[in-house]
Amino acid sequence: MAGNDSLNEFLTVAVDVAKQAGEVIREGFYKTKNVEHKGTVDLVTETDKACEDLIFDHLKQHFPGHKFIGEETTAAHGVSQLTDEPTWIVDPLDGTTNFVHGFPFVCVSIGLTIKKVPVVGVVYNPIMNELFTAIDGKGAFLNGNPIKVSSHSELVTCLLTTEAGTKRDKATLDATTNRINSLLYKVRSIRMEGSCALGLCGVACGRIDLFYELGFGGPWDVAAGVVIVKEAGGVIFDPSGSDFDITAQRIAASNPLVKEAFIEALQQSA
Amino acid sequence: MAGNDSLNEFLTVAVDVAKQAGEVIREGFYKTKNVEHKGTVDLVTETDKACEDLIFDHLKQHFPGHKFIGEETTAAHGVSQLTDEPTWIVDPLDGTTNFVHGFPFVCVSIGLTIKKVPVVGVVYNPIMNELFTAIDGKGAFLNGNPIKVSSHSELVTCLLTTEAGTKRDKATLDATTNRINSLLYKVRSIRMEGSCALGLCGVACGRIDLFYELGFGGPWDVAAGVVIVKEAGGVIFDPSGSDFDITAQRIAASNPLVKEAFIEALQQSA
Repeated sequence: MAGNDSLNEFLTVAVDVAKQAGEVIREGFYKTKNVEHKGTVDLVTETDKACEDLIFDHLKQHFPGHKFIGEETTAAHGVSQLTDEPTWIVDPLDGTTNFVHGFPFVCVSIGLTIKKVPVVGVVYNPIMNELFTAIDGKGAFLNGNPIKVSSHSELVTCLLTTEAGTKRDKATLDATTNRINSLLYKVRSIRMEGSCALGLCGVACGRIDLFYELGFGGPWDVAAGVVIVKEAGGVIFDPSGSDFDITAQRIAASNPLVKEAFIEALQQSA
Repeated sequence: MAGNDSLNEFLTVAVDVAKQAGEVIREGFYKTKNVEHKGTVDLVTETDKACEDLIFDHLKQHFPGHKFIGEETTAAHGVSQLTDEPTWIVDPLDGTTNFVHGFPFVCVSIGLTIKKVPVVGVVYNPIMNELFTAIDGKGAFLNGNPIKVSSHSELVTCLLTTEAGTKRDKATLDATTNRINSLLYKVRSIRMEGSCALGLCGVACGRIDLFYELGFGGPWDVAAGVVIVKEAGGVIFDPSGSDFDITAQRIAASNPLVKEAFIEALQQSA
């Protein structure tokens, strides 16, 4: 495991480049209203690619010995194998549908794993100017202020966030809305914001109490968020109740007090 | 109908007091994290009541001859009858669940009807610092800049917002999730943000393309939003396709291009 000094340096470099990428996203975000639809789609692809290049170039310059996994790269070269080496796992633009529509939940997500464990996390929403950061063992922060998960201990007072996902086959859609139906009897209410990384950060800062998502894009959606949730006092697990697997595209997060009740509710909703 | 000068004055006074109420909401919003749960509920009630008193006192002082309808007042004195007189319809704190949890979609909503038609609308989100305003025939604005609805003309590229509501009986919940299931085959994705007034403003500024809600609290949730949507070039209607009725607790909003397709999709989802 890298020393504290290294982790601090990794975080500093990641925050620097997240803010640079955030500028690119912010520029594009306010342009989408002024281009035709085809142009909008191009703008997403361009912004996504520009941000990934920016982030990877910057990180590779500082840490030439590290490994890199990104949404764009992986799509181009097949699924990268996660090793024990220090590995930067990056989603340059999480919430692309929000980006196209100008809905303000968009972010850069930069996580670093060492021995396959996420140890540094940066999630930056440049539209709402919210920077979430965490280092393994050192707490979680929003714009430099410490954050912690909520203290709700009963599902009935909990606010749940999830996503409808992108699959539109009948089996998946029925499972999605049946799960929501079952959970709505038990929780206070539900939100959908369209960004997995920001959903995790919502749990971390206690804005929401429960989050789950099944079938998201890949480890880049969660690598940063899981460190931030854990360092804010939260727990990360598979929606089935088993251990979280960063390669499995399934995640649930909550405070520790409601974890067992949340797992039971998720199991009953399946 | 009041003259332009009057409508301008009505808007100016409403904006002034919306910002004052926004300060009270903002203070409470950042306090909720530091109080116990019982305290939180008290804080909501207190903030809601303090904002309604502030808004009604201010409006009554400027417009002693006008009528007033508010969530708190109506709860206390029975459902007020909407007349042809100039009537201020106010939700001092829309998104109370969000307020309790610190989720940033909360707002003040102040609408004025004359001859039962909403002619002035102010929706202010003090957390994201977004002020939506409109006067009948004079356009809609976000922080002083003109806004307009999206130009998406096919459902498949549309972002839909709705709410899960507060009722938890089986018939209502099944209808809610079946409707979402049916619509998800046709639209790009779905968001839930927990504020009816801000949902309408989302359509007005083109962040979302489609919005509907069934069974919301009352006319105070929509009186301001409907002016803002219409003045941004949007359309407001009953989810069944018939004319919008401000007393019916049912609303749908979109740009004009997708209105017919949206109504058909809503009818098929029933």
